[in-house]
Amino acid sequence: MDNFTFQNATKILFGKDQEQAVGQETSHYGKKVLLHYGGGSIKKSGLYDRIKNSLAEAKLEVVELGGVKPNPLVSLVREGVDLCKEHNVDVILAVGGGSVIDSAKAIAAGAYYEGDVWDFFTGKTTATQTLPIGVVLTIPAAGSETSSGTVVTNEDGQYKRSFGHDSLRPKFAILNPELTYTLPAYQTACGITDMSAHIFERYFTNTKKVDLTDRLCEATLRTIVSQGKKVLEHPEDYDARAEILWAGTIAHNDSLGVGREGDWGSHDIEHEVSGIYDIAHGAGLAIIFPAWMKYVYEHDVARFAQFANRVWDVEIDTRDLKATAEEGIARVEAFFASIGMPTRLSHVDIDETHFEEMAAKATERGPLGSFVKLHKEDVLAIYKLAK
Amino acid sequence: MDNFTFQNATKILFGKDQEQAVGQETSHYGKKVLLHYGGGSIKKSGLYDRIKNSLAEAKLEVVELGGVKPNPLVSLVREGVDLCKEHNVDVILAVGGGSVIDSAKAIAAGAYYEGDVWDFFTGKTTATQTLPIGVVLTIPAAGSETSSGTVVTNEDGQYKRSFGHDSLRPKFAILNPELTYTLPAYQTACGITDMSAHIFERYFTNTKKVDLTDRLCEATLRTIVSQGKKVLEHPEDYDARAEILWAGTIAHNDSLGVGREGDWGSHDIEHEVSGIYDIAHGAGLAIIFPAWMKYVYEHDVARFAQFANRVWDVEIDTRDLKATAEEGIARVEAFFASIGMPTRLSHVDIDETHFEEMAAKATERGPLGSFVKLHKEDVLAIYKLAK
Repeated sequence: MDNFTFQNATKILFGKDQEQAVGQETSHYGKKVLLHYGGGSIKKSGLYDRIKNSLAEAKLEVVELGGVKPNPLVSLVREGVDLCKEHNVDVILAVGGGSVIDSAKAIAAGAYYEGDVWDFFTGKTTATQTLPIGVVLTIPAAGSETSSGTVVTNEDGQYKRSFGHDSLRPKFAILNPELTYTLPAYQTACGITDMSAHIFERYFTNTKKVDLTDRLCEATLRTIVSQGKKVLEHPEDYDARAEILWAGTIAHNDSLGVGREGDWGSHDIEHEVSGIYDIAHGAGLAIIFPAWMKYVYEHDVARFAQFANRVWDVEIDTRDLKATAEEGIARVEAFFASIGMPTRLSHVDIDETHFEEMAAKATERGPLGSFVKLHKEDVLAIYKLAK
Repeated sequence: MDNFTFQNATKILFGKDQEQAVGQETSHYGKKVLLHYGGGSIKKSGLYDRIKNSLAEAKLEVVELGGVKPNPLVSLVREGVDLCKEHNVDVILAVGGGSVIDSAKAIAAGAYYEGDVWDFFTGKTTATQTLPIGVVLTIPAAGSETSSGTVVTNEDGQYKRSFGHDSLRPKFAILNPELTYTLPAYQTACGITDMSAHIFERYFTNTKKVDLTDRLCEATLRTIVSQGKKVLEHPEDYDARAEILWAGTIAHNDSLGVGREGDWGSHDIEHEVSGIYDIAHGAGLAIIFPAWMKYVYEHDVARFAQFANRVWDVEIDTRDLKATAEEGIARVEAFFASIGMPTRLSHVDIDETHFEEMAAKATERGPLGSFVKLHKEDVLAIYKLAK
């Protein structure tokens, strides 16, 4: 196990009706709120009104910025930063999924910065002072509700880049499983894929002797697989929605990754795909991860065989661990397919046209990943495996 | 799954040499420190000197109070409270195991209270303002390093009582596996039992549909069982010590118990034993828990059969879940015996003399537990099963 520092102070309010506390929780951080959200779904569902009422009851002044799209854009972030500066906003309340929260984090970082907010994503600057963020989560997927990171797309050059800072971890996150009932099946499945991927990124490591975190990862994955099927069959099964919602947070609150090196190559490889093509991040991961696994598993067959056995109930063939490992990867792909995800680029009509360009952009700041270091040719090979 | 609120903001510094940061971490909370510890072991090992040096480098003024014993006494807590008031202490640094940390928490609560600190434990008052606490952990067991609770014994009447308040959660905890190398085998095994028991208390619940937390509990228990044997065979196996140290924190940082009702009856039943007899809390739990399980398992045979299968690899006899459950309980008892724990009261020379008195005291504030509510006669029956 490697040395580590761990602190995740986000206050979680989980369960039925918890969004009623949003005004009170937000009021701990100031008087003026930027209410940040996506499209019309929170208005249709009535959540928007309930939140506005709660904020009004807590006597908070509200500035609004809706319109966040999946793969949130830096242009809207810049609008948010301007609003915060203009209105002296004290706290940002993000209502939505990972895209809204990531957009809010970028705004929070930009609010006290004189230059362009994209500078955080290019590494030109880092955060010092940021605005506090609260969250009402409606999509279990990204884990952004307790994480310190944000991913934003710059439409000028179609760059999708990430940035992380401890101060960007939300102060509180309200998680009500009922708010996820109306999430369409496809988006639900994208979320299930995304949270699985967050665990894969931590699980496939070169750090030796990490038994507890291995087992915690496996436990969470088993829950995602079994409950994921349930929520798709019964979208209003409260308990299954609750399991998936909490699993999405656990998958990315850093507790599964302490003391071990993460990989994150697949995320970078996927970001180039959803940076150029209009596909959901989760769908992109369902395509890229099986290909990545096929490309790298021989680097540590024992780990992949353990994964196959403990997560996917593949019987270990002690004379052929490679076959055991391969069967595990096949089950990952079959699981994603079973929940309605594409598992090949061709399924979403992406051909080889941009493979070279994407592989070059993905690796322009150096090789990706850590389990196996991936150079441009490796990334290209993975795109080809994912065809 | 039940509604819940979860927040655990303790900063963990885990790994080799992390105690070098103790001065810097402590200095965030003030200038004057109460250094609180147990006996001579930290002086023998050199840890005491390293800590004093680090505190001196951070220009902190140190008031000292050593002498904490296992099952910490309210008399020493009162001394600590007086010292804090007399010297205007800003922060308490606990160096040791659960007893030292629990003693520090009681002092932290008493420091701003005009009355007697025992009032917190009788429920006469609750905490409002408390002193911040930092921890350097030397015994993986109690999980007190990130928990909000404290257990203290009042030698006047031999009452062992607990008290909890969110403000008592340590601000930081330094966990270096090397500091646990010199822990004797018996104490190591007591710690392994204690952390197992913390998971049992959460695992055996009447809350239905708690798949993820079930699996996280099982994952942590499997690690404790496999790595527990290793640390006893190889006390200086860094990785095994690291697994056990981190498992002790995970077992009690509340993440395994969210959204489900805990039991805690066995802890209360044990407290009466170690309140009267001079035995370690862990040893008492190794005796009480198998007896408790035998007494209550028919209340939910399916849960005990799942436990037997997933934690102890007992094959499920689908025609006889009761036999599966019973075999699981037998393996719990065998595991505790295999690590050198007593599993019957007779093993530690405790006879029936005080059974009546202990059962009466344990239940004087009402029935114990929640999985099965235990009245005086039930507690008495469990002591008899544990004979």
